Amino acid sequence: MAATTVSNKRVILKRYVTGFPSEEDMEVVTAEAPLMAVPAGSEAVVVKNLYISCDPYMRNRMTHHEVPSYVADYVPGEVLTNYGVMTVISSGHPDFKAGDLVWGITGWEEYTMIDNPESLSKINHPDLPLSYYTGVLGLPGLTAYAGFFEICKPKKGDYVFISAASGAVGQIVGQLAKITGCYVIGSAGSDEKVNLLKTKFGFDDAFNYKKELDLDAALKRYFPKGIDIYFENVGGATLDAVLPNMRLRGRIAACGMISQYNLDNPDGVHNLFYIVTKRLRMEGFLVFDYNEMYHRFEEEMAAYLKEGKIIYVEDVVVGLDAAPAALIGLFTGRNVGKQLVAVSQE
Amino acid sequence: MAATTVSNKRVILKRYVTGFPSEEDMEVVTAEAPLMAVPAGSEAVVVKNLYISCDPYMRNRMTHHEVPSYVADYVPGEVLTNYGVMTVISSGHPDFKAGDLVWGITGWEEYTMIDNPESLSKINHPDLPLSYYTGVLGLPGLTAYAGFFEICKPKKGDYVFISAASGAVGQIVGQLAKITGCYVIGSAGSDEKVNLLKTKFGFDDAFNYKKELDLDAALKRYFPKGIDIYFENVGGATLDAVLPNMRLRGRIAACGMISQYNLDNPDGVHNLFYIVTKRLRMEGFLVFDYNEMYHRFEEEMAAYLKEGKIIYVEDVVVGLDAAPAALIGLFTGRNVGKQLVAVSQE
Repeated sequence: MAATTVSNKRVILKRYVTGFPSEEDMEVVTAEAPLMAVPAGSEAVVVKNLYISCDPYMRNRMTHHEVPSYVADYVPGEVLTNYGVMTVISSGHPDFKAGDLVWGITGWEEYTMIDNPESLSKINHPDLPLSYYTGVLGLPGLTAYAGFFEICKPKKGDYVFISAASGAVGQIVGQLAKITGCYVIGSAGSDEKVNLLKTKFGFDDAFNYKKELDLDAALKRYFPKGIDIYFENVGGATLDAVLPNMRLRGRIAACGMISQYNLDNPDGVHNLFYIVTKRLRMEGFLVFDYNEMYHRFEEEMAAYLKEGKIIYVEDVVVGLDAAPAALIGLFTGRNVGKQLVAVSQE
Repeated sequence: MAATTVSNKRVILKRYVTGFPSEEDMEVVTAEAPLMAVPAGSEAVVVKNLYISCDPYMRNRMTHHEVPSYVADYVPGEVLTNYGVMTVISSGHPDFKAGDLVWGITGWEEYTMIDNPESLSKINHPDLPLSYYTGVLGLPGLTAYAGFFEICKPKKGDYVFISAASGAVGQIVGQLAKITGCYVIGSAGSDEKVNLLKTKFGFDDAFNYKKELDLDAALKRYFPKGIDIYFENVGGATLDAVLPNMRLRGRIAACGMISQYNLDNPDGVHNLFYIVTKRLRMEGFLVFDYNEMYHRFEEEMAAYLKEGKIIYVEDVVVGLDAAPAALIGLFTGRNVGKQLVAVSQE
């Protein structure tokens, strides 16, 4: 097969970010694409990117860390990378062939040569929307599943509170909690999102935290008996308000703290002594530690989706030109549901 | 037996405390003692108090709580209560007889009538110092044992950091950690205490936190590879400095936060996002939840003490007149080792 090159639109990091990121920290450029066929003897694959995922943890990667962070820093001038859904165009790897649908780490660009295709997963349920593999069937889904069942250890009847509840992870946690027989309240940052939680995701109730002057009072109103499980996505003032409202032996799954990611000095949390008096367990987790659960999760979640027991809402922008704004929008709460970018029509 | 009464010196709470407590918040008074013989038909016991324990958690009980706290508030005008070691003088209960040595909740006074003697425990190792049942063989010992083994889940070779390390609990945690094969560093608030940690309790090293301008730098110096287990007794700035220095999947046993007990507004802790990125587990516990472990603990600890594998240092003041100052001294760090009051010669 003759090697051909085509142009390749891509999103690069322009400069390291401090404080709140902006679209200008990234740049959409057009470069020469990788070879459209893998060289003889290589085990790489070339993919065409269909959907790429916008996730809050990417903010951490946009900052230069003197001491390595938990994920590698992006490099100014180089393409951003994250999870996506792709079609294999050319493969030198025995496990993949042209036309295969896969998901895994790829570039924020039209075409990517992936040198380690072992990191890619086949899409086993192509009858569901392919974009779901950036969300409910991808890492956000596994994050919700592992975090809720492995860290929160839910029991039927538990009182569950979820912050950023309409987001990529929160909406799934809430629905898994309802399936488990819990009482579930979510908070979100707009009335539209609150409405989604109540009408679409089946939360028992929900509130707009921006309209609550006193979060402690709001939590006391929604949880007069207290909270057994708090699924933490935001940190800061919300965590501080939650702590006194936890019940004895409550569990806090620390999944993310998006309210803190753009602060040079994170907010102080004052109510930690409740961890002692209420015998709370607060435990952090990263989805990367639960990869071995993926297959079981994928089958269970695909079944829930096909049976209509779990609904998933996505916020899709079209085209790489819209990707920088979509990523920034995560931090202003612009997205309604899981944010992703449709790079190419399938 | 004829009912006789004698005078009874006692320490009462004079007024509810806000902020830093003082000796003047308590008063030593002389009252009429309870009956020296229990009334016919009663199952109460009358005890003579030998040793009473001064513990930081008593501070919480000196404040009036609108919402009930995790322990009952003391009542102004009434005697303080806490764990002590006692001789039974008179008993209406079939399990106890005059002359029995017991430990349990009693009053800060010379004689106490105890209406529910089921709460008392017999002293099974009277060959060890009786005062040890306010400390290493009492609740501080069980706190150390349960907190370290049940919450910290130590492994040989773990790097262990203990704050307030020469205190009633900390000195035992450190020695249990050494027995387990851990590397152990403690912090304390005076050079005398640091010296104790290094020369008497066998810590691998120790430092005076008051001499460290930069706690983060100190921890990096003492734990270049990071901390697997933090046994938390102080809270606030120390916790904030510990979080970035924890290793992946580290455990923080939240036992107490003495630096915060006299603050109207607890300090803010800023570094909680490390709980996510380092997958930390921070778990609070109260010794009252581990009563069922007591007997196993008592036998194991008594053996360690008799074999000289665990050393215990006490700070004993003599007489109830000295009790208020001894209690206040916990919060200025005056005590060296476990603080207790010898009420009466045995």
